[in-house]
Amino acid sequence: MEPRPARLSRTYMTDLVLPPDTNQFGTIFGGKVMAYIDKIAAISAMRHARQRVVTASSDSLDFLAPIRVGQAIHLEAFVTYAHKTSMEVFVKVLAENLLTGETVITARSYLTFVAIDEEGRPVEVPPVLPETEEEKAHYESAPRRREQRLARRQAASQGEFPMP
Amino acid sequence: MEPRPARLSRTYMTDLVLPPDTNQFGTIFGGKVMAYIDKIAAISAMRHARQRVVTASSDSLDFLAPIRVGQAIHLEAFVTYAHKTSMEVFVKVLAENLLTGETVITARSYLTFVAIDEEGRPVEVPPVLPETEEEKAHYESAPRRREQRLARRQAASQGEFPMP
Amino acid sequence: MEPRPARLSRTYMTDLVLPPDTNQFGTIFGGKVMAYIDKIAAISAMRHARQRVVTASSDSLDFLAPIRVGQAIHLEAFVTYAHKTSMEVFVKVLAENLLTGETVITARSYLTFVAIDEEGRPVEVPPVLPETEEEKAHYESAPRRREQRLARRQAASQGEFPMP
Amino acid sequence: MEPRPARLSRTYMTDLVLPPDTNQFGTIFGGKVMAYIDKIAAISAMRHARQRVVTASSDSLDFLAPIRVGQAIHLEAFVTYAHKTSMEVFVKVLAENLLTGETVITARSYLTFVAIDEEGRPVEVPPVLPETEEEKAHYESAPRRREQRLARRQAASQGEFPMP
Amino acid sequence: MEPRPARLSRTYMTDLVLPPDTNQFGTIFGGKVMAYIDKIAAISAMRHARQRVVTASSDSLDFLAPIRVGQAIHLEAFVTYAHKTSMEVFVKVLAENLLTGETVITARSYLTFVAIDEEGRPVEVPPVLPETEEEKAHYESAPRRREQRLARRQAASQGEFPMP
Amino acid sequence: MEPRPARLSRTYMTDLVLPPDTNQFGTIFGGKVMAYIDKIAAISAMRHARQRVVTASSDSLDFLAPIRVGQAIHLEAFVTYAHKTSMEVFVKVLAENLLTGETVITARSYLTFVAIDEEGRPVEVPPVLPETEEEKAHYESAPRRREQRLARRQAASQGEFPMP
Repeated sequence: MEPRPARLSRTYMTDLVLPPDTNQFGTIFGGKVMAYIDKIAAISAMRHARQRVVTASSDSLDFLAPIRVGQAIHLEAFVTYAHKTSMEVFVKVLAENLLTGETVITARSYLTFVAIDEEGRPVEVPPVLPETEEEKAHYESAPRRREQRLARRQAASQGEFPMP
Repeated sequence: MEPRPARLSRTYMTDLVLPPDTNQFGTIFGGKVMAYIDKIAAISAMRHARQRVVTASSDSLDFLAPIRVGQAIHLEAFVTYAHKTSMEVFVKVLAENLLTGETVITARSYLTFVAIDEEGRPVEVPPVLPETEEEKAHYESAPRRREQRLARRQAASQGEFPMP
Repeated sequence: MEPRPARLSRTYMTDLVLPPDTNQFGTIFGGKVMAYIDKIAAISAMRHARQRVVTASSDSLDFLAPIRVGQAIHLEAFVTYAHKTSMEVFVKVLAENLLTGETVITARSYLTFVAIDEEGRPVEVPPVLPETEEEKAHYESAPRRREQRLARRQAASQGEFPMP
Repeated sequence: MEPRPARLSRTYMTDLVLPPDTNQFGTIFGGKVMAYIDKIAAISAMRHARQRVVTASSDSLDFLAPIRVGQAIHLEAFVTYAHKTSMEVFVKVLAENLLTGETVITARSYLTFVAIDEEGRPVEVPPVLPETEEEKAHYESAPRRREQRLARRQAASQGEFPMP
Repeated sequence: MEPRPARLSRTYMTDLVLPPDTNQFGTIFGGKVMAYIDKIAAISAMRHARQRVVTASSDSLDFLAPIRVGQAIHLEAFVTYAHKTSMEVFVKVLAENLLTGETVITARSYLTFVAIDEEGRPVEVPPVLPETEEEKAHYESAPRRREQRLARRQAASQGEFPMP
Repeated sequence: MEPRPARLSRTYMTDLVLPPDTNQFGTIFGGKVMAYIDKIAAISAMRHARQRVVTASSDSLDFLAPIRVGQAIHLEAFVTYAHKTSMEVFVKVLAENLLTGETVITARSYLTFVAIDEEGRPVEVPPVLPETEEEKAHYESAPRRREQRLARRQAASQGEFPMP
C-alpha cells in the first residue's frame, strides 16, 4: 500500500472543563483525561486507515499538571507509525488558562489501534510517511516501542502480574 | 505510621455495559474502561489513606478481550504498596456474559496516587500490610515498578517523547 | 429446575458521589439512588436466572440518611426468592465517608423482576437455595411480601389510586 | 399558614425516550423512570412549599407497561397533602406512541418530601387546598397512607428487613 | 388532509437546572437551552404530524435573562403553521425561581421541521387549525417568516457567509 | 485597547458522533449540534477577550446536511468582530465520513457573546484585527449583522412574537 502522510491523520480537540468532569478539588479526573485521549486517538487512527478501529493498548501515562474547572483542555493526535494491521498514535494533552492564555503540558502518551473490517477481522493499513522533524522523530523511535509492547504482553501472559 | 492491611482497601464494582458506552461494533470504548479503572483505583486509595487523592500515573494497559453491550463489567482493586505520600493500586477488569456466566479477563493495570490535604499538599500515608499470597506477590514486586516509573519520568523530562 | 444458591447472585457496587449526582445542598438525589438500586438488582437477577430481565415492581423505600458529595455509595444485592418466572431481589445501600471510614445505612428495598426470552416472553427461573442465616430470613418472609404485592396490584386496578 | 391550592404545584414534563435510557430490548430502564419520578415530584414539592426539599420516601411502584425507545414519556405531579414539614406528592407516568398518539399508563406513585432551610433544618409548609374531585380523593386518603408509612418505618427499625 | 388543531401539539416541559448544566458563574449554558428547545419542538412536531421529523432550521434566538442553578426551566411549544411536508414550531422558555415563584421569559424562537417516512423521504403533514388568539397571531405571521427563511437559504447558497 | 488578530481566537474541535447523540434514524439531533456550536464559540470568545463570557444571541441556523452515527463532527470558530463589550463569533460545522474522508458542510452560524467580570458586569474587549481574506470578509459585513440584531431585539420587545 501507498504510504500516507502523517499530517492527514492530525486531529485537534479543544473542550471546556466543566464541574461534572472534576473531583471535589476542582481538577479534572485522571479517568476523564484518559477517555479524551482514547477518543481523539481513535479518530486519528480512522483518518489514517479509513477503516473502523479498536484500541489495543495504552502506554504508561504520567499526569504532569492538573487541569482546573473553567480551563480548556486541548488535545492533539497523529499516527506515528503503522505495521500491517496496527497503528501507533501519539497524543499530547495541554491545559489552557482561558483568562491568561497560559498553556502547560498535562500528559503525553502513545496508544495502539487495530484496523478491522465489518466482521471485526483485522485489515491492513497504509504505512506512515513522516514529513516534519517531529513526525520523523516519533516514526524512528516507534519500532523500539513496538518491541517493548510485545515483550510486555508476553511477560503479562507469563505472569508479570503476580497471581491469577 | 501503623501498617494497614491491603484487604481494607479492596473495592469491587459491577456495572452493565450499555449502548452509550460502546462504539458502532457494540464493544465498550477503551477510554470508558480507563475511566472505570481510574475511578475504582481512586476509591481504593482513599480507603487505604483516608485522605483525598489525585492520580499521578497509569502504567501501560493492554486490552486482552472486548466487553460487549449487555455484558457486565466487573472491576476489583486494592492498594499493593505505599511509599511516603504515594500509593500503588492494582486493578483487574473482567467481562461477564450475564446469560452464560462466562467470565474473561479484559485488562489489568497499576496506577499511582498521591494523598493530599485540603490545601492540596501531599500527606503521608500508612505502609501496606500484605496478607494473602496474591497481596504479597504484588507487594514484593512494587519497588521494581516504582523504579521503572521514576526512570520513565526522568526520560520523559529529557526528551523520551521526541520533540516538544 | 435445580435450586441455585443465593450467593451466586450476590453483586457489589461501589461508586463515588460526584457533583452532577447531587442537588444544591450537596446530597445525592433520591432518584439517582433509585436508579443505582434498579441497576444492581437487575444484574443480580440476571446472575440468578442467566436470562434477560425486566423490572416489575419496587417496594416502598425510605431514605434513612443522606449521601454527600465526595462520599462513596456502596450497594449490595442478592436474589432472595424466585417463583416461576419472577424473582425478588434485596438491595442494601450504604454511605461511606471515605475520609473516616464511617459507614451508615441509607436505604433498603425489595424489587421484583421477570425473566424474559429474546421475544420478550416470560421464562421460568430456578428456585433460590438460601444458605446463610440472612439469606434464610429473607427467603422465609418472601411469600408474605409476594402476597402483599398481588393485593396491591389488585387494589390499584380497582382504584386504590383515586381518580383516573 | 394559609392553605395553598393543589393546582399551584402541578408540574408536567414530556421527554423523548432515547437509546441511552433503554436496555438491550429497547425499553426504558425501571431506574430511569424512578429518577424522572423523583425529579418531577421534587419540583412540584418546591412549588408548593417555596422551600428547598429532600426526598424522604417513595411508596411502592408497579411498572404496568414498558416505554419504548422513540416514544414520549409524560409525567404529571401535584402535592396531595402536607403535614407540618412534610408533603406527599402524587406522580403519574404515561407512555405516548408519537406515531399514533396512543397513550398508556406506565406507573403511579406517591413520594414524600421534607422542606428544609439553608442549614438543612426542617421548616413548616402550608396545608394543601384540594379543589377538583381528583385532588380531593387523593387528599382524603393521604392520612391513611401516612400512617402506613410511619408503621413501615417503625417495623423497619425493629427488623422488618431480616438480618442487619 | 384535514386541518389539525394547534392545541393537539402543545407540549410542556419543566426541569431543574443542575450543576452539570451550568458554567462557572452558575448560569445555564446557551447551548443547553438550545438543546432543550430543539427537543421539545421535535416532540411537538411529531404530535402534530404523527410522523418522524428532522430539524430543518432554527430562527435567531436572543437570551433575554439567565437561568440559575437550582431554578426551574420551563418550556412550552406548539406547531403554528404547516406547509406541505414542513412545520413551524414556536417555543417559549421561562425561568422560575422555585423559592419565590417569580417567573421571567428567557428566550423565544421558531424552528422548522420536516416530516419523514421510514426511508427518510419527506411526507405531507396536515394543515394547522389555530383556535386561540395567540395561535391565530402566530399562524397569520408564519408565511412571512417562511419567505424570510427561503430568502436566507438562497442568500447563504450565494455566499451570504463570506468565503467558503 | 490594542486590536487582537482574529487568528488568536481560532478554535477547532473534532468529535465522534455516538449513539446517545442521535435520534432513531441514526442522525445527530439538531439540539446537540447547537450545543456544540455554543461551546466552541464560547471558548473562541474567551480566547479573544481573556475574560469570562455569556451567550447573548444566536443567529438563524440552517441544517444543510445530516451527520450520521460513526461520522466525525468537525467545528471551527473564530471571533470576527468586537464592539465595546460584545463579540461576534463565526462557527462552521462539517461532517466527515471517517471511512471515505468525504467532508460536507452541515451548518454555519454567527453567535454573539458579552464579556463579564467576576461580578457579572460587562467589560470591554479588544477590537479584532482581521488578517486573511476570509477574516476580512466576515469583519466587514459584521456591522450590518449587528444592526439587524438590534432591530430584531427591538421588534421582539415591541411584540414581533405575537401574544404574551
